[in-house]
Amino acid sequence: MVGSVAYDGVETPHGRVERMLGGSCTYIALAASFFTKVRIVAVVGDDFCDSDAELFASKGIDLAGLERVPGKTFFWAGVYSADMNDRTTLRTDLNVFADFDPKLPAAYRSQPHLMLGNIQPALQRSVRAQMERPRLTGGDTMNYWISSTRAELLETLKEWDFLLVNDSEARQLSGCHNLRKAARAVFDMGPRTVIIKRGEYGAILFRPEGHFIVPGYLLEDVFDPTGAGDCFAGGFTGYLAGCGLDLGDGAADLTELRRAVIYGSVMGSFCCERFGVDRFRTLTRAEIDARYHEFQEFTSF
Amino acid sequence: MVGSVAYDGVETPHGRVERMLGGSCTYIALAASFFTKVRIVAVVGDDFCDSDAELFASKGIDLAGLERVPGKTFFWAGVYSADMNDRTTLRTDLNVFADFDPKLPAAYRSQPHLMLGNIQPALQRSVRAQMERPRLTGGDTMNYWISSTRAELLETLKEWDFLLVNDSEARQLSGCHNLRKAARAVFDMGPRTVIIKRGEYGAILFRPEGHFIVPGYLLEDVFDPTGAGDCFAGGFTGYLAGCGLDLGDGAADLTELRRAVIYGSVMGSFCCERFGVDRFRTLTRAEIDARYHEFQEFTSF
Repeated sequence: MVGSVAYDGVETPHGRVERMLGGSCTYIALAASFFTKVRIVAVVGDDFCDSDAELFASKGIDLAGLERVPGKTFFWAGVYSADMNDRTTLRTDLNVFADFDPKLPAAYRSQPHLMLGNIQPALQRSVRAQMERPRLTGGDTMNYWISSTRAELLETLKEWDFLLVNDSEARQLSGCHNLRKAARAVFDMGPRTVIIKRGEYGAILFRPEGHFIVPGYLLEDVFDPTGAGDCFAGGFTGYLAGCGLDLGDGAADLTELRRAVIYGSVMGSFCCERFGVDRFRTLTRAEIDARYHEFQEFTSF
Repeated sequence: MVGSVAYDGVETPHGRVERMLGGSCTYIALAASFFTKVRIVAVVGDDFCDSDAELFASKGIDLAGLERVPGKTFFWAGVYSADMNDRTTLRTDLNVFADFDPKLPAAYRSQPHLMLGNIQPALQRSVRAQMERPRLTGGDTMNYWISSTRAELLETLKEWDFLLVNDSEARQLSGCHNLRKAARAVFDMGPRTVIIKRGEYGAILFRPEGHFIVPGYLLEDVFDPTGAGDCFAGGFTGYLAGCGLDLGDGAADLTELRRAVIYGSVMGSFCCERFGVDRFRTLTRAEIDARYHEFQEFTSF
């Protein structure tokens, strides 16, 4: 799992936290850790707290690839609108993340599964190049990279088995408003599995042979949606890795892929129940599986 | 089925039609006619075309309650945004609809199922009062009635078994942003079955004992979304009437209710494939059932 480990300041209608553990890699890794052994690649500054490292360690997450350098850890602050469908960034201090040049520990290179969180496409490509022969490579990206480093991103995508983005990113990347058409355009860029996240409305899995749609979980209260998309990525990738799934030509197990989308949705929903990563401190696999069954219950007919 | 029969002028990114058959009662009735015998209550002017009456008749729709009065039929014109998520009303000429005072033919009064399309709540109540003892009463409403005739609407809702509205209407009516909370607030107003339509994102069925969520069908091309919500209502009500379902206390068959939501979604999706009611001219029950199975295929895991 590659991405950012950061500190976040977040304000939602439910309250405000000045500084808490965040970052795409953090959410992906914590969510995935309930399904598989996770190894992370990221960078933090000398202000990184031992208690945060301990949280990773408590989930069995390998920190050999977590580089610690002089300076401050990436800091982001934002405030959500009353309905939490919009957020405004108040501050983005890249700090040590500005010079992030991911280097994989030797033990990581032979791993079969690689999830590239939302960072500069050139860095995602560099990580992929350091891997021996992963059976499954996928990742996320964002509007900024799609518009400002498009050629680089397209080069990077060629090597991915799956792309996991939200609906507006899929539209921007493909130039197609219709999501079926957008997914087909992405197939031609490389990834043969496209997962489109729709926030509170759920997600769609597209494959050349068909698609699968899951509605979002209806929470009674959304405390803090920060990281929900990354937790989806973590649940999805973690579940696939946990069952050793390959997405190679013709080999994809569509049943397991659908289950992975549900586990992604489950992890995204839990993420919103508390501020930051707090829900993952106490979450159990039994609670995860109970919510998976809730998804079956409220979608079957 | 009670509501408006109208002529519409519609412009979407796919084209423009100056004048075509429309209105809530039209869409509800046509969609429901694939599942059950439909009787409509509405008013038209002396400009109402024989060919439109013939379309209803070709679907076995009883027009005994379609009043014809001197003057012009209700006319509405609107234009959709490029992504078709917004529309602007260009013209609303109520014409003969301004004095609509629904009177039920004697043969209608003993019918077991009543669907009240979006008209003034006082008129919806007057229709309900003319019925002997319907086993199932439900309807739709809109932002205008919720804000300007709230007391009247609340009085009307007391007698309904189900309410079928979109998400913003549910929020406005209940004062709750969260849809689970909004549905509970509506239960307290009378209807113990609340169906919330979410446009392209599908629909949610709420009952005191739980909820069911269906995502929207992913069309390759949305030609014209006009009437899709009413077609949902028609498919939902028509299916329930067709299987003789009651929503009385404890008697509700939740399996059939879920199926009704799918048939509603199916009819809404077909509606968008052509301008106005055109898709219903050729649609077959076999196509409807094939799409029902598509819903099973793309949602099951």
